[in-house]
Amino acid sequence: MRKNYLLTPGPTPLPPEVRAAMARPIIHHRTPQFQAILKEAADGLKFVFQTKNDIFILASSGTGAMEAAVANILSPGDTALVIQAGKFGERWTEICKAYGISAEIIDVEWGKAADPADIEKKLKANPRIKAVLLTLCETSTGVANDIAACGRVVKNSEAVLVVDAISGLGAIDLKTDDWSCDIVVSGSQKGLMLPPGLGFISVSPKAAKLIEGSRSPRYYFDLRKAKQALDKTDTPFTPAITLIVALNEALKLLKQDGLEAVFARHKKMAEATRAAVKALGLELFSPKDGSDVVTAVKVPAGIDGEKLVKTMRDTYGVTIAGGQAELKGKIFRIAHMGFIEEFDIIVGISCLEKVLAQLGYKFQMGAGVRAAGEVFLK
Amino acid sequence: MRKNYLLTPGPTPLPPEVRAAMARPIIHHRTPQFQAILKEAADGLKFVFQTKNDIFILASSGTGAMEAAVANILSPGDTALVIQAGKFGERWTEICKAYGISAEIIDVEWGKAADPADIEKKLKANPRIKAVLLTLCETSTGVANDIAACGRVVKNSEAVLVVDAISGLGAIDLKTDDWSCDIVVSGSQKGLMLPPGLGFISVSPKAAKLIEGSRSPRYYFDLRKAKQALDKTDTPFTPAITLIVALNEALKLLKQDGLEAVFARHKKMAEATRAAVKALGLELFSPKDGSDVVTAVKVPAGIDGEKLVKTMRDTYGVTIAGGQAELKGKIFRIAHMGFIEEFDIIVGISCLEKVLAQLGYKFQMGAGVRAAGEVFLK
Repeated sequence: MRKNYLLTPGPTPLPPEVRAAMARPIIHHRTPQFQAILKEAADGLKFVFQTKNDIFILASSGTGAMEAAVANILSPGDTALVIQAGKFGERWTEICKAYGISAEIIDVEWGKAADPADIEKKLKANPRIKAVLLTLCETSTGVANDIAACGRVVKNSEAVLVVDAISGLGAIDLKTDDWSCDIVVSGSQKGLMLPPGLGFISVSPKAAKLIEGSRSPRYYFDLRKAKQALDKTDTPFTPAITLIVALNEALKLLKQDGLEAVFARHKKMAEATRAAVKALGLELFSPKDGSDVVTAVKVPAGIDGEKLVKTMRDTYGVTIAGGQAELKGKIFRIAHMGFIEEFDIIVGISCLEKVLAQLGYKFQMGAGVRAAGEVFLK
Repeated sequence: MRKNYLLTPGPTPLPPEVRAAMARPIIHHRTPQFQAILKEAADGLKFVFQTKNDIFILASSGTGAMEAAVANILSPGDTALVIQAGKFGERWTEICKAYGISAEIIDVEWGKAADPADIEKKLKANPRIKAVLLTLCETSTGVANDIAACGRVVKNSEAVLVVDAISGLGAIDLKTDDWSCDIVVSGSQKGLMLPPGLGFISVSPKAAKLIEGSRSPRYYFDLRKAKQALDKTDTPFTPAITLIVALNEALKLLKQDGLEAVFARHKKMAEATRAAVKALGLELFSPKDGSDVVTAVKVPAGIDGEKLVKTMRDTYGVTIAGGQAELKGKIFRIAHMGFIEEFDIIVGISCLEKVLAQLGYKFQMGAGVRAAGEVFLK
């Protein structure tokens, strides 16, 4: 017997309502029954995205929705400004490259947030920039960008603002309309508490104009086709029926709690996690710009970071994430996103303490759990 | 209280084992636990595809896998030969068009199968043809193509054979290797008895050579990235974890029965369905080339075909499919694919009789069910 705990930044744990919904008999997608489900999903997504824009549901992971954004608004030879502050910022650059789009890059030190003033400078210096591509929460470093400030800068230019909110949507605030986000891309397996397999993409009227003009090849991710279908409460291709049925259950939970309460829960969990690791004498990877989505922590000297993560998972059933790419072995990441609440964090910290102790790290046993508990008590 | 029956050519009903698997707590995809699942899926898929080739699992519907085939082996300006015998043959042409690939078309009358001799002639006449794109079972008409014969023709040319087996794989025979199919594309929601959301694509060594040379833009569907990941039992992007866990349950069922028994069950259900509709005085849309996957039936004179389908579904809970595109209202289609067995067919025919009688069609009540029952008794 072993209980498993998932504290990773995607997939995140599934609520029982979501799991039960996926076990229902399947229904056909070209029926009034499924149209009602699509309608409910569209309304619920608008609530979470805080937008009046169209939102398209794709049968893909979040990366598919990122590609849909690029291929639908940009053409070969166009210029995009990419804010690169980690692995997922780099993904924007890679997609641009694949499509023959020139990527002007703002390289932000991993662990830091983007400076909106840099974006403003670049936009002024190069009026050919058609789109600004950035990341709400850079999962690889745990950093959240100030999208509201970036939106104020991009709004006054010809460029559209494209936000990868795969990690963060439904966990931290993102006001699509108020913050002038032209395209917001997301995925199912993070704040939306679903398995991976759905991509989402919202499109503002400013971005919609670009879609008609794009010369990039696309078919499965063609948002012109998707728009025609959406206007008839339909999808251009067979949708991921089961995941959309489950999506409505997750959206119900978010609506019941209300976005403010959901964001407050995430904020508190992040505070508790940061307090706990500091109490253990560990150092945050991003002390200034850490998000409420996932906390990156430096592996202390003399401790094998990969062994730490592996032991927590394989011996005790608590799965956290290691570092990615250049941060492999150097950090570990504890997610506090989606269907996770305070006692999951307590378990995660308790397990971290246990394995740190076993690996010979010196600290006061229980200090992390106590610090987290004190935050939750407030 | 109402029981629902799904007799549509995708999605098909889900076995209880598959439904239960989807309700399990989710696990993380970058773990040895999930690697074992991916390994099992790879082996099981090779069994069903009857191949030694690599098979890639995509988080997409079948159309995404079709696009992956085109974008990875063909470049703008290349020529492909498309066999168009219905809506899904036309999809190959549309994808080629989206990617600037010249599609030479063999237009086959809807309801008829392709003639391999026509393919041979075209290949001889135009040595620029790099790929032959066709359909195993054209769901829109119910017709199955003779892939073995097509394979013999294409094998001796420079071109690769690309088969859309979305509808049909795991229901009727398709010997990927023995029939020289270079690329076989499939989806989860048909013979594989899963919800939609997974695409599959197998690649022969002959096709793999083309992948390196393609200049078409692609990122999410880039099979070079997929191959690098597959060699490490991994996926390039977050996979649709839950559906892959469920896939292994479906593959277990197919292995337990064995492919021969599975194909024999489909054959018998198709025979029974054809016998039943003929006994009701109805006419098959494709009397010669009808598949064992789905049976298309002409709507008799004086009967409203759309009302027939709608009444069966909305009043009695039995969902069959109407006609698509130019066949809308002119045919209805009864699927006998996936997790469907003889008594589902009996229910479907019984409900068809009931609604036909209510709509004023003249026939001997019970004749269809009797004819089907006689086939199943054999």
